[in-house]
Amino acid sequence: MSPDLSGDQSQHVVAFPIFHPRWLRLGRAVPFVVSPSILLFFPGPFCYPDRVNNAFRLGVLGSGKGSNFAAIADAIAAGKVPAQIAIVLSDMETAGILAGARERKLAAQFVPPGKFRTKLDEDAERAFVSALQSAQVDLVVLAGFMRVLKGDFLRAFEGRIINIHPSLLPSFPGLDAWKQALDHGVKVTGCTVHFVDAGVDAGPIIGQQTVPVLDNDTPETLHQRIHAAEHRLYPECVAAIARGEISVQGRRVVRKMS
Amino acid sequence: MSPDLSGDQSQHVVAFPIFHPRWLRLGRAVPFVVSPSILLFFPGPFCYPDRVNNAFRLGVLGSGKGSNFAAIADAIAAGKVPAQIAIVLSDMETAGILAGARERKLAAQFVPPGKFRTKLDEDAERAFVSALQSAQVDLVVLAGFMRVLKGDFLRAFEGRIINIHPSLLPSFPGLDAWKQALDHGVKVTGCTVHFVDAGVDAGPIIGQQTVPVLDNDTPETLHQRIHAAEHRLYPECVAAIARGEISVQGRRVVRKMS
Repeated sequence: MSPDLSGDQSQHVVAFPIFHPRWLRLGRAVPFVVSPSILLFFPGPFCYPDRVNNAFRLGVLGSGKGSNFAAIADAIAAGKVPAQIAIVLSDMETAGILAGARERKLAAQFVPPGKFRTKLDEDAERAFVSALQSAQVDLVVLAGFMRVLKGDFLRAFEGRIINIHPSLLPSFPGLDAWKQALDHGVKVTGCTVHFVDAGVDAGPIIGQQTVPVLDNDTPETLHQRIHAAEHRLYPECVAAIARGEISVQGRRVVRKMS
Repeated sequence: MSPDLSGDQSQHVVAFPIFHPRWLRLGRAVPFVVSPSILLFFPGPFCYPDRVNNAFRLGVLGSGKGSNFAAIADAIAAGKVPAQIAIVLSDMETAGILAGARERKLAAQFVPPGKFRTKLDEDAERAFVSALQSAQVDLVVLAGFMRVLKGDFLRAFEGRIINIHPSLLPSFPGLDAWKQALDHGVKVTGCTVHFVDAGVDAGPIIGQQTVPVLDNDTPETLHQRIHAAEHRLYPECVAAIARGEISVQGRRVVRKMS
């Protein structure tokens, strides 16, 4: 698995804009008809007018209040992450993440998750994938999305889905990781940004940040401290991917310059 | 499980030195015959002349070159750990840890481990326990001891055996933890000092120190960095136990003052 996730790479999509059925399907402006030679001088903007400067496009999925979404959006606004949030999707109609997205004038959409409690049913899966593909996202960013993604979703965005987990994986995968850490009595925990694969919190690790566990911590105080670390780590990892700085070698995620 | 491991506690042993068969068995100087009332003014030194100031006594077990033993011995010599090394035992006759102990004028003894490769046989177990009991150790410190301790040994020193493991447990228990960490692609690993129980690297955690994993790390460079962290962490944890600062509450090890 070694997907190239750089922003530069996404330019390949627009190298020869002769005709692509997506233009009609997406109902977007048909590009100027230009010869490939002109494209050598003016690549990109002619083809997809909404892909200004070929910004790296994020699709953010969340079920809760969306504090990691907000951290990423704020980091983008502050110029620290060379990306744009193309769409925010939620399986919860009243989720704070949707309200937050609308406040920021971003496309936000509730997608009914279907009949299951911890995963999407087939129709819902198709609806999520379709919404993300329509928004032409380069990277799917899970930010407190409380459903496990399965085969078709994973295949549609293979190597292009990331998640943040509130522990130093592989310790404490699964739910309430901060409580697991406290109960186990570790002195250090943290958070992990990782690629999503078919395992539970098991994909290649992009970044980790440590958080001390204090003797007088409750699950709440520890969770709060981990959350603060997440809000620093997640934008940094998204920025590194958007800048095309990382590559995946087996299970190891390394900086390309190294 | 909440053993009191403080140095103060060990004074209880010498409160009424009427007669104890250990005096003869150990071949030590028979104490002055004194009345208990005098002991109120001069406790301790009359009874066990080798327990000067009731120093907290360590029994160190190792199979290798003994760099953690050396770190603890150096920290004691520097006055950072209020303890003394009463005996050093090894299952390897030529282990560096025995040579290092003899260089430091400490009692050092090879104890044949018996017929098994990864554990002690019954005779060997008895011989280790007996040597540690004769040396009156308050705490058994495993420093690169490559055999699993079993029932009788654990019962003889329940809650008084500690080990250091080269990962942030519960991640990567078992052998070559630094290599496991590198192969898994974590960005942070470290070392863990923990009480030893019947599980593998599973007892209550006393202290942990983090170590970054670098993109260009080899198993050797990472192992070296973890080793350096171990040499800081292990003496600190031994000192905290010797000072009676810690207590065990279920799986959580906390400072008594907190």
